[in-house]
Amino acid sequence: MDEMLMMGREVLAEQPFSVLIGAELLKFSVGSAELKVPVKRELQQQHGFLHGGVVSYAADNALTYVGGSVLGPAVVTAEFKINYVRPALGDCIVARAEAVYVGKSQAVCRCEVFAVAGEKESLCAVAQGTITKIGRSESRSEG
Amino acid sequence: MDEMLMMGREVLAEQPFSVLIGAELLKFSVGSAELKVPVKRELQQQHGFLHGGVVSYAADNALTYVGGSVLGPAVVTAEFKINYVRPALGDCIVARAEAVYVGKSQAVCRCEVFAVAGEKESLCAVAQGTITKIGRSESRSEG
Amino acid sequence: MDEMLMMGREVLAEQPFSVLIGAELLKFSVGSAELKVPVKRELQQQHGFLHGGVVSYAADNALTYVGGSVLGPAVVTAEFKINYVRPALGDCIVARAEAVYVGKSQAVCRCEVFAVAGEKESLCAVAQGTITKIGRSESRSEG
Amino acid sequence: MDEMLMMGREVLAEQPFSVLIGAELLKFSVGSAELKVPVKRELQQQHGFLHGGVVSYAADNALTYVGGSVLGPAVVTAEFKINYVRPALGDCIVARAEAVYVGKSQAVCRCEVFAVAGEKESLCAVAQGTITKIGRSESRSEG
Repeated sequence: MDEMLMMGREVLAEQPFSVLIGAELLKFSVGSAELKVPVKRELQQQHGFLHGGVVSYAADNALTYVGGSVLGPAVVTAEFKINYVRPALGDCIVARAEAVYVGKSQAVCRCEVFAVAGEKESLCAVAQGTITKIGRSESRSEG
Repeated sequence: MDEMLMMGREVLAEQPFSVLIGAELLKFSVGSAELKVPVKRELQQQHGFLHGGVVSYAADNALTYVGGSVLGPAVVTAEFKINYVRPALGDCIVARAEAVYVGKSQAVCRCEVFAVAGEKESLCAVAQGTITKIGRSESRSEG
Repeated sequence: MDEMLMMGREVLAEQPFSVLIGAELLKFSVGSAELKVPVKRELQQQHGFLHGGVVSYAADNALTYVGGSVLGPAVVTAEFKINYVRPALGDCIVARAEAVYVGKSQAVCRCEVFAVAGEKESLCAVAQGTITKIGRSESRSEG
Repeated sequence: MDEMLMMGREVLAEQPFSVLIGAELLKFSVGSAELKVPVKRELQQQHGFLHGGVVSYAADNALTYVGGSVLGPAVVTAEFKINYVRPALGDCIVARAEAVYVGKSQAVCRCEVFAVAGEKESLCAVAQGTITKIGRSESRSEG
């Protein structure tokens, strides 16, 4: 495993909420991040789908990771927007994020979340947001 | 406790993810919903703040509730946007949502999330989104 | 007319696009701004409603104004989100913006756009966005 | 010129606001649309950049077009979000939109807006939004 992915996984292991959810960092390189969350009973809503809050967690965290990959580790998601397009069912979801613009202190990133069932992937959400370096301005909710 | 709040709490109790997080529905009436999430260790990120994913869960779920209060119970959050403005610290967060537009099949709703420490409340996030009736179109991620 | 409104109107008069559209600043004070755009033929789309681009211009510019009212004049709208809820018909639209969070270098603001027909106002769009001081970081699209 | 592009250009010619702005539909096929707006004096703000409202008009309209390409002509942009990343300077801007999810009555689409100066293109904004069929639910601001 390369150093960057290893470092990213260490950070994830220090996030109690990510541990609670069972998130796993699959890929992590400059401008790209991939985060996996298992579909399990305690992450569902009342109809058996993964709760929207879990999908938005995955998008938010993948966005923060990819922002950190281009801006350095001390970053937060300042804001993001998510469109849910399909219920999340299957074995797991995978959130794939990429940086589309990198400035000195901010990056604009996008994320697609797929539901994975066996070999099949279905898009279940699309997100876009701003990742900001911390330290240079007011603090914001991290993670 | 009134019937609507009781019904809302029953739905929340049927969402395993909301139970895992420890969410509590404080208020629920037509056009208004208030959801509380305790600040506890397993919901934090690496710096001791509540994880952004928990804040977005609270906003998303409060938006779904308030949408359901005006459109009927079978609704989903189709999309939303959130701005994180301060790290979430303290005893708990409270997400307060209101409907600003109600159509036949969709409602546009807003939510403010406050961090509560003793008597003091600080705004930590602001959200806006679309809640849609289900059954009338394609299904989307519920919860 | 107070000084702040006068100053705001001078800035608007220096924006050729705002002049082209016929926008008028109705109110401008710390944390609040109100911008009016007339409903006229050349601002419409193919069905006789005000073009969505005009509604989003009004929201965007009112957001920039209210951000400037709390952060100082050198600001840009870094990002915003808008929900269109009704077609814009009538005599004019009025965009009313308020600051909901003010930091050192950024403000999170909201805007409601109303269609005005005689005495009657109907909500036609709701927006939320981030306004950022310029000079401190990379440049962004101003206006 | 193919039939679809021709039809798209006819619709654009029926939008007085698009005519006022001088927008031109460059490409239009199923799942893809490209709209051009010239950089000219009357579309600028006070610092000589293209006004943000023009950039958001281009994004919004390109999103509506691409939504229409997959859902049929009677569509509106229900909501969208835009991140401005660079001031728009140069000869023109080009908004390129694609559909990322197509449902029965809604499509989620993305758009990138580039500033074009000679041979050089620079990303100046990124957008994401929901395009909805009209007729099936309440009306919304079209265009």
